Amino acid sequence: MTEEMTGPLADSRDSNPVFPFHKGGKIEVRPTVRVRDRAGLSLAYTPGVAQVSEAIAADPELAYRYTWKANTVLIVTDGTAVLGLGDIGPLAALPVMEGKSLLLKEFGGVDAVPMCLDTKDVDEIVDTVVRIAPGFGGILLEDISAPRCFEVESRLQERLAIPVFHDDQHGTAIVVMAALLNSAKVTGRAMGDLRVVVSGAGAAGVAIANMLLAAGIGDIAVGDTRGIVWAGRDDLTDVKADLATRTNRSGTSGSIEAAMAGADVFIGVSSGQIADEAVASMAPGAIVFALANPRPEIHPEVARRSATVVATGRSDYPNQINNVLAFPGLFRGALDVRAASISEGMKLAAAAAIAGVVGDDLAPDYVVPSVFDPRVAAEVSRAVGAAARRDGVAQA
Amino acid sequence: MTEEMTGPLADSRDSNPVFPFHKGGKIEVRPTVRVRDRAGLSLAYTPGVAQVSEAIAADPELAYRYTWKANTVLIVTDGTAVLGLGDIGPLAALPVMEGKSLLLKEFGGVDAVPMCLDTKDVDEIVDTVVRIAPGFGGILLEDISAPRCFEVESRLQERLAIPVFHDDQHGTAIVVMAALLNSAKVTGRAMGDLRVVVSGAGAAGVAIANMLLAAGIGDIAVGDTRGIVWAGRDDLTDVKADLATRTNRSGTSGSIEAAMAGADVFIGVSSGQIADEAVASMAPGAIVFALANPRPEIHPEVARRSATVVATGRSDYPNQINNVLAFPGLFRGALDVRAASISEGMKLAAAAAIAGVVGDDLAPDYVVPSVFDPRVAAEVSRAVGAAARRDGVAQA
Repeated sequence: MTEEMTGPLADSRDSNPVFPFHKGGKIEVRPTVRVRDRAGLSLAYTPGVAQVSEAIAADPELAYRYTWKANTVLIVTDGTAVLGLGDIGPLAALPVMEGKSLLLKEFGGVDAVPMCLDTKDVDEIVDTVVRIAPGFGGILLEDISAPRCFEVESRLQERLAIPVFHDDQHGTAIVVMAALLNSAKVTGRAMGDLRVVVSGAGAAGVAIANMLLAAGIGDIAVGDTRGIVWAGRDDLTDVKADLATRTNRSGTSGSIEAAMAGADVFIGVSSGQIADEAVASMAPGAIVFALANPRPEIHPEVARRSATVVATGRSDYPNQINNVLAFPGLFRGALDVRAASISEGMKLAAAAAIAGVVGDDLAPDYVVPSVFDPRVAAEVSRAVGAAARRDGVAQA
Repeated sequence: MTEEMTGPLADSRDSNPVFPFHKGGKIEVRPTVRVRDRAGLSLAYTPGVAQVSEAIAADPELAYRYTWKANTVLIVTDGTAVLGLGDIGPLAALPVMEGKSLLLKEFGGVDAVPMCLDTKDVDEIVDTVVRIAPGFGGILLEDISAPRCFEVESRLQERLAIPVFHDDQHGTAIVVMAALLNSAKVTGRAMGDLRVVVSGAGAAGVAIANMLLAAGIGDIAVGDTRGIVWAGRDDLTDVKADLATRTNRSGTSGSIEAAMAGADVFIGVSSGQIADEAVASMAPGAIVFALANPRPEIHPEVARRSATVVATGRSDYPNQINNVLAFPGLFRGALDVRAASISEGMKLAAAAAIAGVVGDDLAPDYVVPSVFDPRVAAEVSRAVGAAARRDGVAQA
C-alpha cells in the first residue's frame, strides 16, 4: 500500500475530504441476532434453521416473516448513466449505490444491497434480476441509461410481484411534482392551468411529463437536444414518439428556449444551458426548476432575477430537488403493505406528502422540505401505503 | 397478521424457540458512516461521491479501497441441496444463507450477501453470478446439488479473478482433514499409511477424497448408494469415473460395509446407515467420522464401543465436524491477500491451522477445536493468507 503515499493522484486523494469518507465502503452486512454459544448456534444455524427452511418450503409466504426479504431491496445498476458521469461501468457506480443504500437505511429503515451488473444488454439485465430476485422485497433501478431503462423497468415489473422502481425516472418526477404543487400554490396558480416546458427527454424528462399528465396539467412541451418533441419529427425513439402524441397541445416545434416564451414553468433535467433571455421571456411569476447537476441549466441567482420560484439539485441554494425526499419513504411504504408494484397513485401520493410537509411555512424559497426533515419519510411512507391499498396493489 | 395466532402450525411455531429467533431475518445492511447534515450528504452522496466514481472508472483497483468490495462476498445457492432437506428451492434456502452470512461476520469479520437463485440451470447460474460479481470480493457457493456443483464452481472460477469456494465440498473436506490429522496423531498412525473408506460420492465425498489424495493418503475407497466406486461400474457420472481412476488402490468392488473390514478410517457423508458389525470389523483403534446430519451413519455411542476416535456433525457429542471452523477464517485470509482463487495449498493450510489449535490438549474426544474458540479463525486466516502468497494467487 506504499504506492498510496506517492504520486500526484494519491496526494490529491489524501488531502480531499471525500476519499477518507469512502474508505472501505459505506455499508456493511451485520447480524441482527447474536450467537454466543452452541445453543445459539443450533437456533441460528443447524439443526434449528432446518425447521424454518422446511416451513418456508411448505408456505413461501412465511419468507416475509422469517427472513430479511420483507425489508430488503436490491439496488440494480449497469453503470451506464451514473450521476452526470455517463457510462462509467458497474464497478465505478458502486460508490453511488452504496450511498443509496446508506440513505435507504438512514431515512427509511430499508435494507438495500447494491448490485452492479456486468452487462448492458436489456435481455440479460432482465433475466439476471429475475433470477436473483427471490430473496428481496423490491427492486430499485438506478443510473441505467435511456431508453433502455424504460424497457428494463416495465419488463421486470411484468415478471416480478415485488415493486420495481427506477429512481432516475419516478423519484425525480415525484420530487418535481411535490415542488410544483407548492410552487403553483405560492404563485397563486391552478395546476390545470400551467403551461410547462421540460428540457430533457431522457429518464427524468419522460417520467416528469407522464406524471404531470397524470396530474392533469394541460400543456406540456418536452424538448431534447434537437428542440421540442413533436409528431412531425422523424428522429424520435418510440418513447419520444409516444410522448409527442400526448404532450405539446399548442403544437410547438422550435427550440426549447423559444417554447419558454410565456410559459409558467421551466423544468430542466438535461445538461444543456438556457439563456437568461429565455427565462425573462416566461410568464410573470415564473417557476424555474434547473436541475442539471452540478451545473444547473441557468444559474439560480440569474434565474431569480425574473422568476419567482427557483429550484435546483444543489444543496447550497434554496429548494433542493433531491430524490432522497422520495425513495426512502416510498420503499418504506411499499414494503410495509407489501405492494406488488408502484402504482401512479402511490407516486402522486408521495409527491403530495412531500409537498404537505412544507405546510404553512410555504414561501418562494421553501417549496420542498429539507431532506433532513424527519417528517418527510414518515409522511411519504404513510401516504404511499394508503395509496397502495386504494389502488389494490397492497398484498399485506 | 391475526392468522398467525390460529391454527396448529402457527401454534407450534409460536411455542418453538427456533422461529422467534428468525423473525424478520438474521442480518441487515447498515451504514458504516453517518450522514447527519448537508455537509455529510455532499460527501457520502452527490456531489462528492462523483469524485470517487470517477477515480474508480480511471483505476478499477481503487474499488478495493473505496467500496465494500474488498470485504464482501456473495453466498450463492440455487436451493437444490439444502442441509439434509434436498431441493427445497431458493426462498426456503434463505434462512440457511442468512445463517452463513451471520457466521461469516461473527467469526471472520466478512460481509456476506445471500443470493438465492431462481434457476437450476448450470449455464444460467454461471452467467448470472458472473454478471452480478463486480461489486464482490469472493463467491461462496452453498447447497448446490452434485454433480452440477462441480461444474458451477470450476466454470465460475475460470471466469472470475476472485475466489470461488463451494463450502459443501471444500469446507467439509478441510474440517475432515483437520480432524483426520489429529486423529492419526492421537492413534499413533502416519497419514500415508491410512486406509480410508468414504461413504458418499456427492459434493462432500468427492472433495474429501481429492483432499486426502492431495495430502498423500494412499488407500481411499469411496462408495455411493450402489457400493464402492470402481472402474468396472457402468453407472458412474464423469466425476465418479474420474474418482475411480485415482482411488481404490486395493481394487475393492463390493459394499461400503465390506470395504470397512480392516480399514483405519471411516468417513460418512451420506444419509445411509452403517451396521455396528462393520465398525467392529475395522482395524484396532479405528477412526469413525459419521457426519450425516441430523442422524449420523452410526450412533456415536455405538461407534465408540469399537472405535477410538468418533466424530459427528452434531453439537451434542464430542468432536463436532462443523464447516464453521473453516469458511470464516478461510474467506478472511483470502480477502486479506486478495486471492484470485482458492488453491489446494490454502485448503491444506486451513486444515493444518484448525488441527494446530488443538495442540497439546489433543485427545480422542478432542480432535477438533470448538467453533467458539477465537483462535480458530485467526489461525486459519493467517495460514490461508500465507499459503496464497506461496501459491502465487495473492494479489495484494
